[in-house]
Amino acid sequence: MTNETLLEALNWRYATKEFDASKKITDADWATLEEALRLTPSSFGLQPWKFVVVQDAEIREQLLPHSWNQRQVVDCSHLVVMAAKTSVSVAEIDDYLQDTADTRGIPVDSLGGFRDMMTGFITDSMSPPEQENWAKLQCYIALGNIMTAASMLKIDCCPMEGFVPPEYDKILGLSDLGLTAVLVCPFGYRSEGDKYADLAKVRYPREKLFRDV
Amino acid sequence: MTNETLLEALNWRYATKEFDASKKITDADWATLEEALRLTPSSFGLQPWKFVVVQDAEIREQLLPHSWNQRQVVDCSHLVVMAAKTSVSVAEIDDYLQDTADTRGIPVDSLGGFRDMMTGFITDSMSPPEQENWAKLQCYIALGNIMTAASMLKIDCCPMEGFVPPEYDKILGLSDLGLTAVLVCPFGYRSEGDKYADLAKVRYPREKLFRDV
Repeated sequence: MTNETLLEALNWRYATKEFDASKKITDADWATLEEALRLTPSSFGLQPWKFVVVQDAEIREQLLPHSWNQRQVVDCSHLVVMAAKTSVSVAEIDDYLQDTADTRGIPVDSLGGFRDMMTGFITDSMSPPEQENWAKLQCYIALGNIMTAASMLKIDCCPMEGFVPPEYDKILGLSDLGLTAVLVCPFGYRSEGDKYADLAKVRYPREKLFRDV
Repeated sequence: MTNETLLEALNWRYATKEFDASKKITDADWATLEEALRLTPSSFGLQPWKFVVVQDAEIREQLLPHSWNQRQVVDCSHLVVMAAKTSVSVAEIDDYLQDTADTRGIPVDSLGGFRDMMTGFITDSMSPPEQENWAKLQCYIALGNIMTAASMLKIDCCPMEGFVPPEYDKILGLSDLGLTAVLVCPFGYRSEGDKYADLAKVRYPREKLFRDV
């Protein structure tokens, strides 16, 4: 990919305020976006998250009033809720280590140093609320990754912090799974009538955002 | 970009453990990555961050012991430290609104509703430590964006949470600027000897990471 094409895609992207409800993402494109989400990097590779894909129209309607009434949650083609684990246990670390050993065909015991690093950083040093906050941070990586990935495929999205997590948790049954909703991201195609698409992107100039040392 | 090319790039990416110190990112490519960083989406578009580009070899050496001795901070081509604002004031919101008005050629008064939304969400509802945490979350979007953007250009990087923020803040003079180091990301090109490049990527299968509703 050329530098120009990359920047063109990133400039094309905007927080879509109005989706064309008649335009659906194809199965092949959606499978690609799900795979891009799955490939999101996370600290230690631990993936302390779940991605909830909400396609049930009735449930989307239930979420709407808890989403600052932003119509994107009902009008989009595919709705993703990114949920973080509300705590991270040693058992989960061991689960991940086993997956690593299986994937790489190595004995799990050979990962002892990696295990110590993870338990030292996460389970020994953080309280469950701190673990939840750490898992939330990781969800924002997934958001950054998928917004950029979607723009490469010219698929629109709208990242949202503006919703009521406890209501989402209730409606989507997340609390019982040890999860809490962190971010909402509807995907689809911009409506021709969305006037926000044509607004100039607002970013501070380099000299205000960067510091050279 | 095709679905295949996107996934190929995301699969190519890995947390580079060993950079080829002799390979430098060209000025044109680096300017593109900086622009990609600048274009990172953030909540309300507020950009509560600064990106510190550390090219001074002596300062990199000073950072090394506070980076769990990970050599990437000295061996990389370009080192970025992502710093979050330690608080967000109404003055900063007004500064951003003025930039928005200037960029779009509209009177700043027309953004009153947007102003109310931002002050309601940030300055009225969050304590300074909560504002700092919110700004940190936004930095993780920048990380997710730039890791994916870099992979499109076949530039390597290594996201790092493993460093000592107070020491970074001291060495880089961030505290006086109302900033704190959140993430470190060295960029460059993988060394041929980095055995991590060939390891199978470990990700849970779809059924474990996704929930369909």
